[in-house]
Amino acid sequence: MLPFKTLIIIDKKSRQHIYLQVAGRMIALIQEGVLKPGQYLPGSRVLAEQLKLHRKTIVAAYEELVSQDWIVPVARKGMMVATNLPAVKPRTFQTPASPYADTPRFSFAKVPSAHVALQPGVKGNLIINDGFPDVRLAPLELWLKECRSIIQNTRYQQHLLHGSGSGNHVLQSEMMKYLSVTRGLNIMVDNIMITRGAQMAIYLAASLLVKKGDYVIVGNPNYYYADLCFEQLGVRMLRVPVDKDGIDVEAVEKLCRTKKISMMYVISHHHHPTTVTLSAERRMKLLEIIRRYNIPVIEDDYDYDFHYSSAPIVPLASADHGGNVIYIGSLTKSLGLSLRLGFMIGPAAFISEAASLRKMLDLRGDNLSEEAVAMLLANGTIDRHLKKSNKIYQERRDQLTYLLQMRLEDVVQFEPPAGGMATWVTFSRKYPLPAIAEKAAALGLRMSGGEVYSHGIQPLNGLRFGFASLNNKELTACINVLEKVIRGRK
Amino acid sequence: MLPFKTLIIIDKKSRQHIYLQVAGRMIALIQEGVLKPGQYLPGSRVLAEQLKLHRKTIVAAYEELVSQDWIVPVARKGMMVATNLPAVKPRTFQTPASPYADTPRFSFAKVPSAHVALQPGVKGNLIINDGFPDVRLAPLELWLKECRSIIQNTRYQQHLLHGSGSGNHVLQSEMMKYLSVTRGLNIMVDNIMITRGAQMAIYLAASLLVKKGDYVIVGNPNYYYADLCFEQLGVRMLRVPVDKDGIDVEAVEKLCRTKKISMMYVISHHHHPTTVTLSAERRMKLLEIIRRYNIPVIEDDYDYDFHYSSAPIVPLASADHGGNVIYIGSLTKSLGLSLRLGFMIGPAAFISEAASLRKMLDLRGDNLSEEAVAMLLANGTIDRHLKKSNKIYQERRDQLTYLLQMRLEDVVQFEPPAGGMATWVTFSRKYPLPAIAEKAAALGLRMSGGEVYSHGIQPLNGLRFGFASLNNKELTACINVLEKVIRGRK
Repeated sequence: MLPFKTLIIIDKKSRQHIYLQVAGRMIALIQEGVLKPGQYLPGSRVLAEQLKLHRKTIVAAYEELVSQDWIVPVARKGMMVATNLPAVKPRTFQTPASPYADTPRFSFAKVPSAHVALQPGVKGNLIINDGFPDVRLAPLELWLKECRSIIQNTRYQQHLLHGSGSGNHVLQSEMMKYLSVTRGLNIMVDNIMITRGAQMAIYLAASLLVKKGDYVIVGNPNYYYADLCFEQLGVRMLRVPVDKDGIDVEAVEKLCRTKKISMMYVISHHHHPTTVTLSAERRMKLLEIIRRYNIPVIEDDYDYDFHYSSAPIVPLASADHGGNVIYIGSLTKSLGLSLRLGFMIGPAAFISEAASLRKMLDLRGDNLSEEAVAMLLANGTIDRHLKKSNKIYQERRDQLTYLLQMRLEDVVQFEPPAGGMATWVTFSRKYPLPAIAEKAAALGLRMSGGEVYSHGIQPLNGLRFGFASLNNKELTACINVLEKVIRGRK
Repeated sequence: MLPFKTLIIIDKKSRQHIYLQVAGRMIALIQEGVLKPGQYLPGSRVLAEQLKLHRKTIVAAYEELVSQDWIVPVARKGMMVATNLPAVKPRTFQTPASPYADTPRFSFAKVPSAHVALQPGVKGNLIINDGFPDVRLAPLELWLKECRSIIQNTRYQQHLLHGSGSGNHVLQSEMMKYLSVTRGLNIMVDNIMITRGAQMAIYLAASLLVKKGDYVIVGNPNYYYADLCFEQLGVRMLRVPVDKDGIDVEAVEKLCRTKKISMMYVISHHHHPTTVTLSAERRMKLLEIIRRYNIPVIEDDYDYDFHYSSAPIVPLASADHGGNVIYIGSLTKSLGLSLRLGFMIGPAAFISEAASLRKMLDLRGDNLSEEAVAMLLANGTIDRHLKKSNKIYQERRDQLTYLLQMRLEDVVQFEPPAGGMATWVTFSRKYPLPAIAEKAAALGLRMSGGEVYSHGIQPLNGLRFGFASLNNKELTACINVLEKVIRGRK
C-alpha cells in the first residue's frame, strides 16, 4: 500500500471540507500517475486509520470520486481507479511547480505601451498626478445612499442584472438633459451611450472607424492613451502641431487635401497634455473642414465641466458639423468617484454598432452604479458638486500658479490653464525631469518623469501638474520637495 | 437692428445661467451667419430692454463673448463681431435639426450580432433568463457596508482613483487564496487579473492569441458571446460536437494533427448552452492534447461555484497543462451583484500583456467596488452566500425538473444539470420556440425564442431555462404560461 499518510496531507484550517481535500489529493495522485488505472484503493477503514480521519470522511471522499468517474466500485474487491483514463507517466513526489511558472510556450501579440508609471515613493503619500479630481470632495456618501435606496426597492432589483450595451436607460436620459443644458447638444437618447470612462469610448469609436494602415490625424503632442489605442489598431498617425491656440487647422486641411483621412482625434478644450483651448477662429475653420471633407472626428472633451476663467466654448459637437463629430466625455472626472463612467455621442446607427462592439468586450455596465449616478444628476447633486469643486479647483490652480512663479520661476515655463485639473509645466533643459522625479521620490513625492507626455515624439521635459487633488498644504509640500531637489537645498 | 427678442430666447427654468444662455445664442447666431464678422452689437442697455433682462446680465454675456474671442470691444463704437472668423453663409431662421439626425456620411465597420433580445413583455415582470443569479439573495447591503467603511477611511481614499490594468491589488490577492481553496489552482498574484466579467477576459485573451484568418476550435453549440467575439476578430471557427460527455476530444485531436490551431475555447463545467460537463476520461485526454500540441486554451468556467449533485471536478487549469490554459471565471454570477467582475489566470507574461491591452479599452476597474468585494471574500461573506444560494438554487433546479416532467413531459427534452443556474430545454419540433416566446410575451412572460443558442449552426429549438433567479411561485407561473401557450388552454 502506498504511504497515503505522506501523500494525502490534510489542512484542518482550510475552508475546504476535509473529504473534498482527500478526494482532491486522490485525483492529483491519479493524474500524477502515482495511482494507476486498475489499481485498488485501500478500504475506507484502513485509510481512515492511516490518515487519522473519521471513516465517514473517507467514504464521502470515495463517493465523490465515484460520482466524478475517477474510481469505480468493484463488487467484493473495493474501489478501483478507473481503467478508461489514459495512462500517464509516473513522476517523483516533489511538490509540483505551478504550471504557470514557465515562460508561455504559445505565442501571443505584443501590445504597445508607454512609460506611464509614477516613481514609487519611498515614504509619504504625496502624488502629483495627471489631473485627477479630489476624491475627498466627491459625493460618495450621497452616491451610496442612492445605491441603497435602489436596492431596497424591489421594482429595481429585477432589472439590475439586465441591461443593454449602451448603458442604463435612466442614466442615458438624464445625461441627454445634462448635455443639452451644459453643452447645448441637440441629441436624442439613441445618440448617447454610457461607457467605462472616456477611454472605452475612444477604443470603440476608433475600432469602428479605422482599420490597419489607415491615416489618422492627431495633435502633437497628444493624449498618450489615445495614441496607444490608435497604435494598437495599426493606423498611421499624422501628427499636426498644437500651439497656444490649439491644433493647427491649416495643417489639418492640407492633409485632408492630399490624403484619404479616415479619422481625426481632437481635444478642443484643455488639450492633453498641454491644456490649450482651440481658438474661436480655428474652431470655425475646423468645422468647415469637417463638413467639407466629411471626416469623422473624435472630439474628446474630457474635462469640459471644469472651467474657471470664462465659461467653456461649446464643443464642436454642438455646432454644425454635418453629423461627423463623435463626442466623448467623462463623468469620472466630474464626479470624482472611483467609478469609471464616460459617454459617447454620435449618429444613432453608429452608437448602435458601438453598443454591439461593447458587448463583445464588456457585456454591460453596472446598472446599480449607473442608476445611482442618474439619481444624482436628477436631484441636482452633481450640479452642486461641480459648482463647489470648480471654486476649489480654481483656487488650487491659482495657488499652484503663485507657488511656481514665486519659487521656481527660473526653472519652469507654464501658462495657467483656463480650466481642467492640471497645469502643463515644462522644465528648463538643465533639469531633466526623470532625474527630478527619481530624487523627489526619495523625499516622498511621487511624480512622473514626464516620459509619457513625449510618447512617440521629441522629449518635452514637461509634465501635467495635477493640482485638483492637492489642497494648499499639499501643493506647498510638493513645491518644497521640488525646490529642494532642484536647488539642492536641505 | 436684428429682432433679438425673437432670436435670443431665454429659458428661465433652465439650470444654465441666463447670461450664458444669451452668450450661447449669440455664438449660434454668429455661427449661423446671422451676425456677421465686423457687425456691431446693440449696446447693453438697448439689448437689455429688448430682452427684458437686467443690463448687468447683458454686460456679463458680452464679457463672456469677449473672453472667448467671438466679439471685440471697439472704442466709442461698442461691441463688434470679430473679423477673423471665416465668413459663413447666412441661413434661414428655422430651428436647426440635430446634426446627428441624418444617416452618417462617414463609413464605419459592422459588428457581428446575434438575436439575443427577449420578447418584450406586454405586462408582468416574469422573465426566463439565460441563467442569472437571484439578485434578491445577493449580499448587496453587506457590500454597501464595505464600500462605506472604505470611503470613511482616508487612507483608502488616496488610492481610489489610481489603479493598474490588472485590477485592485487587495482583490487580486484575495482571489488568489479563494481560487486555491476552491479550485486547487497553484498560482501567484501576477498570474491573476481582475476584469469586467468573464466577457472582457475572453475578449482580451482572444485578442492576444489570434489574428484574422487563424483557426480556432470551439464546441458545437457554443456560448454565443464567445462566438461573436471570435467572429469580430475574424478567425475561422472549427466547430467540434459537444455531446453528453462534453466536447469530442477525438475530433479535437484530429484537427490538431491536420491544422495549425491558434486557440481552443472550452467550457469544461456546464457547457454553454447545453450544461454538460466534460467527463473525467475526456478531461485527461484533452490535457494530453493540450500538452502535446502546445495549444493555448481558454477555459471558461463561468459557474464553477455552483454545483449540486457532486463537488465540481477541478478545472483543466488546476491540472498539468504545461502552462497552456488561460482560465476565466466570473464573480458576477457568484455574487449576484450587478457589478461586472471576472478574472483571468495565465502565465505572468501573458497577464501583463492582457493588462496593457485592457488599459486601451478600459483604463482600470472600479477600485472601490473591487476592494469591497475583496473584503467580502476575506471575511467569509461570499463563502456563506455561496453555501446559502447553492442550497436554494438546487431546490429551484429540482422544482423546475419536477414541473417540466409533470406538466410538459411530452413537449420538452432535458437533463437536470449537475450545477449552474439554467437547464437546457429543447422543445418538440411541433412547437417552434419563437412562436411560443411571442405568445408567452402576450401573457406577461418574457423569454428567448431560442434563436441565439443556434447562432451559426442548425436551429436547435431549445433554450436555457434560468431557474436560479425564479422562486417556486415564479417557476410555477412560468410553467403555467408555457402550458397555456402550448396546450391552447385558458
